[in-house]
Amino acid sequence: MVSDLPTLIESLAQRARQASLAMNSASSEEKNDALEAIACGLESNRKILLEENQKDLNAAEENGLSNSMVDRLRLTHERIDGMAQGLRQLIDLPDPVGAVIEKKNRPNGLEILKVRVPIGVIGIIYESRPNVTIDCAGLCLKSGNASILRGGKEALHSNQALATIISEALTASALPEDAVQLIPTVEREALNHLLTLDEYIHCIIPRGGEGLIRLVAENSRIPVIKHYKGVCNLFVDASADLKKAQKITVSSKCGRPGVCNAIENLIVEQSVAEQFLPSCAKDLTEKGCTLLGDERTRSILQDFEVSPAGDDDFHEEFLDLRLSIAVVNSIEQAIEFVNRFGSGHSESILTAERARAEQFLNQVDASSVYWNASTRFTDGFEFGLGAEIGISTDRLHARGPMGLEELCTYKYQIIGTGQWK
Amino acid sequence: MVSDLPTLIESLAQRARQASLAMNSASSEEKNDALEAIACGLESNRKILLEENQKDLNAAEENGLSNSMVDRLRLTHERIDGMAQGLRQLIDLPDPVGAVIEKKNRPNGLEILKVRVPIGVIGIIYESRPNVTIDCAGLCLKSGNASILRGGKEALHSNQALATIISEALTASALPEDAVQLIPTVEREALNHLLTLDEYIHCIIPRGGEGLIRLVAENSRIPVIKHYKGVCNLFVDASADLKKAQKITVSSKCGRPGVCNAIENLIVEQSVAEQFLPSCAKDLTEKGCTLLGDERTRSILQDFEVSPAGDDDFHEEFLDLRLSIAVVNSIEQAIEFVNRFGSGHSESILTAERARAEQFLNQVDASSVYWNASTRFTDGFEFGLGAEIGISTDRLHARGPMGLEELCTYKYQIIGTGQWK
Repeated sequence: MVSDLPTLIESLAQRARQASLAMNSASSEEKNDALEAIACGLESNRKILLEENQKDLNAAEENGLSNSMVDRLRLTHERIDGMAQGLRQLIDLPDPVGAVIEKKNRPNGLEILKVRVPIGVIGIIYESRPNVTIDCAGLCLKSGNASILRGGKEALHSNQALATIISEALTASALPEDAVQLIPTVEREALNHLLTLDEYIHCIIPRGGEGLIRLVAENSRIPVIKHYKGVCNLFVDASADLKKAQKITVSSKCGRPGVCNAIENLIVEQSVAEQFLPSCAKDLTEKGCTLLGDERTRSILQDFEVSPAGDDDFHEEFLDLRLSIAVVNSIEQAIEFVNRFGSGHSESILTAERARAEQFLNQVDASSVYWNASTRFTDGFEFGLGAEIGISTDRLHARGPMGLEELCTYKYQIIGTGQWK
Repeated sequence: MVSDLPTLIESLAQRARQASLAMNSASSEEKNDALEAIACGLESNRKILLEENQKDLNAAEENGLSNSMVDRLRLTHERIDGMAQGLRQLIDLPDPVGAVIEKKNRPNGLEILKVRVPIGVIGIIYESRPNVTIDCAGLCLKSGNASILRGGKEALHSNQALATIISEALTASALPEDAVQLIPTVEREALNHLLTLDEYIHCIIPRGGEGLIRLVAENSRIPVIKHYKGVCNLFVDASADLKKAQKITVSSKCGRPGVCNAIENLIVEQSVAEQFLPSCAKDLTEKGCTLLGDERTRSILQDFEVSPAGDDDFHEEFLDLRLSIAVVNSIEQAIEFVNRFGSGHSESILTAERARAEQFLNQVDASSVYWNASTRFTDGFEFGLGAEIGISTDRLHARGPMGLEELCTYKYQIIGTGQWK
């Protein structure tokens, strides 16, 4: 590297800002052509991609990374196809930019349009999965944003190979070459400096574990949209259809326990607890799920192995086949429980009574609140967004699944006939 | 104070969070009743308000505050009426909470509603004007948010008197008493601690000068919506109606030079500069405006006193009767100038040609971009929002004038019939 690190990062950010100004005028066709060019680049550079990925895999093995880490790192023909396919799905989605969100005519004759526009420059900080590079570059391009990508050190060779493919595709396209840039180093100093450059970068999205997100949020002077953990709760009310409730409980815990929209806590209204819990616990334990419970749960489930659950357990995102269970006296207590222990991600009530459902939907403070459905549906595709950069647990700008529209902001265009005041 | 400062601030923030959960279910009527009670409280406590305000005014004089600072601090019968009137205007505005922003039916039978809800707990950090206390408390109440107010030290007695009136009104109302809380100290330590409490506080809005905003933005772990300076530009294109252009130039600089939507830079296309500038400069100087200019401007305006304008001048928000002028070769140069020197607040092009107007409207990166109108219209009331907490120069969440809807976020309510996956 010829220049020092802060200078390098600053120049990269400046170029991203310039690219983002040019991206404001990019047509849908130009953006789609660039996406297709990247997809073709992936397909025609499989050999290099796999070779570079092998370097990362070798290093991972030397460094004793866990099997699941190595698996996340690995590129295969199938995964390369998957990345290309993801880009082509983006091509088919409507362009979010330029839509008139609102239109007003004011008494003084001014016409005010609220128009959707790209945010500008978005920094994505992520961990070891190399497909995030393509995923995020594609989402940012389609939404008219310039992006700065900073992947994990384990995937550096793979990411650099992917960045070269993107860069070649952009150079041959009508879009600015600097519309996607990968930070060519994983030094912490580079990241720290990046997070101070609020003059050029408008938004930071960290994608990864809680540690990474906290690190970024605490050090960033640039607004961060956080995608924190999902401590999701399912409440089985007295009037719930208990057969459906069992199906939903088991599937939303055991279907895919490692995802953020899986439930971590089951809450049962006391009057149905004795009827519901034993049968449900049997089903759960047969699927290999470990149970934790409060006192009442443990006394009902005496025939099962249920460890005591404390506040820390109810607060925890297990990401595993573990479930904490609490018995409550009333819906009010359930709502209090959810607002206390939930992480504001996805919460569900199962009940036959509309009034209770409405109480839960209104009083529970979370991005996605369900009545008679599994929390597992919190997902950009399930919500019909077509794509997703993540699920925001923040309240400002975007809450819940973030798609292309959520990667945009708006501007007012005001058309007059010489008005002054 | 019985407890130490961090404990005091933390307990205040916790109570705000509890209040905000209760505010989620507050009806429009309950909120409006509380606003009316505060308005009545202001009117029936004039004597105490003026007495407490006099203490602040005396201290201000002792401390040698400038006349304009003292004026901002002063409460009068008229200003008390103004505050009460502001609250009653809020009562008349529609409740932003509960509106269904979007509704979707998914192929699996799920019904997904995107519903507008309060953000939660909002911290407002401001300077010396005591009316901001009432203004912000009212806006936050109407939008269903709990607020934590931290005013300037110069206005502490006035603010405490106002907070007492609010608190008495809330106690007698159906809303939680802690829905509005004033931090009872202006110690910096209290503010610094407040800005770390992202567990309880969801958004910080600093209202004041650039120094205050930077201080808050750099120290806050909570998302901040910034209302930075307005370096607004007016571009007179070759095809502009020069008579109207002169009227708009003079009014948008001299009408009220101390506000953020007044212009700081005038940009003139070279082919009309010789015709336009002398007449416009005459008008401006007659109104007491000091002129600065680039080389071409100064050579055209040889008969006027025009100091040389450098990059620093074009970057500066004068908030005063001073105007920097630049002559450019083309609309492209004008757009580049605006994107370089403007602060992303409000920018205007005066032109008769639609194609150029569209180029400017699309390529200029600012919250509000005008065609043939003064930048002075960037304002919540002029935009029909009915009220305004400020003008955001940020891109995330809210951009431009922020009214009641922008003090809200959304949540998804998903209604199923037992769906699981």
